Amino acid sequence: MRVFGIDCGTELTGYGVVQMDQRAATSRLQHVADGTIRLNKKHATPQRLAQVYAELCVQIELHAPDVVAIEEVFFAANAKSALKLGQVRGVAMLAAATCNRPVAEYAPLSIKSAVVGYGLAAKDQVQFMVKRLLRLEGDFSSADAADALAIAICHLHTAQTEVQTVLNAKLPAARLNHSGPHPEGVSR
Amino acid sequence: MRVFGIDCGTELTGYGVVQMDQRAATSRLQHVADGTIRLNKKHATPQRLAQVYAELCVQIELHAPDVVAIEEVFFAANAKSALKLGQVRGVAMLAAATCNRPVAEYAPLSIKSAVVGYGLAAKDQVQFMVKRLLRLEGDFSSADAADALAIAICHLHTAQTEVQTVLNAKLPAARLNHSGPHPEGVSR
Repeated sequence: MRVFGIDCGTELTGYGVVQMDQRAATSRLQHVADGTIRLNKKHATPQRLAQVYAELCVQIELHAPDVVAIEEVFFAANAKSALKLGQVRGVAMLAAATCNRPVAEYAPLSIKSAVVGYGLAAKDQVQFMVKRLLRLEGDFSSADAADALAIAICHLHTAQTEVQTVLNAKLPAARLNHSGPHPEGVSR
Repeated sequence: MRVFGIDCGTELTGYGVVQMDQRAATSRLQHVADGTIRLNKKHATPQRLAQVYAELCVQIELHAPDVVAIEEVFFAANAKSALKLGQVRGVAMLAAATCNRPVAEYAPLSIKSAVVGYGLAAKDQVQFMVKRLLRLEGDFSSADAADALAIAICHLHTAQTEVQTVLNAKLPAARLNHSGPHPEGVSR
């Protein structure tokens, strides 16, 4: 399974692509790509939104993910900043819809819990764990790209947990029938 | 000049097209079209945003306006509702950018002032004046379509005032030269 994570921002929007082969004996996360869309402050909002949309469409088509994962936001400094962030989030979701990819949304608490194991973890703790989980060396292209990778990892961990839960629920019945297949996760 | 007004909403998005021939002796507003994009509550957000984007692109291309006008929003019940409204607003501005139309934004106070002459006017007062200014009979397709027409009227009134201000500033110089042209507004 391949996931395209997006961290929306009014100036920088990060994206990160992570893959996990759930058929493998030990599911390992694999870093595929990450990047940052930097918006020109001199451009008007519609042009900036058009840039985010065009670049995300190109990257989603290029990496052909199974799912696009985006952070859910419930609070902001004020209504104006929430509205501006919403505008970028709207075109990001539209880019996923245009490329026919389903969208999954995760609360910041879930993302931090999935990556660090602690919902109130600091930004640098998240970045440290993203580097470690993906076996990356060097710096990220931006903090937003690191956040986007964290969102993608969150989806993969959540999907893996769901697959495992379904398998655990099915196992007793399979054992009773003496004909159950070996548990296998959803594979890309 | 022809203006395409958009009133964004998370369930209904209204649009209204108004035209004014500024060359005419008495500039009269002319209703061209209005409509409402009704979103299916059962659809996921990305599909709803895709519907708003597709329908707005079709309507903007069809009516070929000089400008797309949208309401500015500075407050909302909470950050979550501001974010959701921002998502629709983002794809509306993207639709204008895709169709190569400039976007003008107006605060609710300016829209009410331009249409009713009073910034704190009630919704039904705005609708009454929109009907009167456009010489419409019968009901609007929705309150959102009426709001969209009000936004378009606001842009036309503002543009007319700006043209008049520029002409008034130029007139004394023209009179001094004894060769000034007759004042003429920007025409479609």
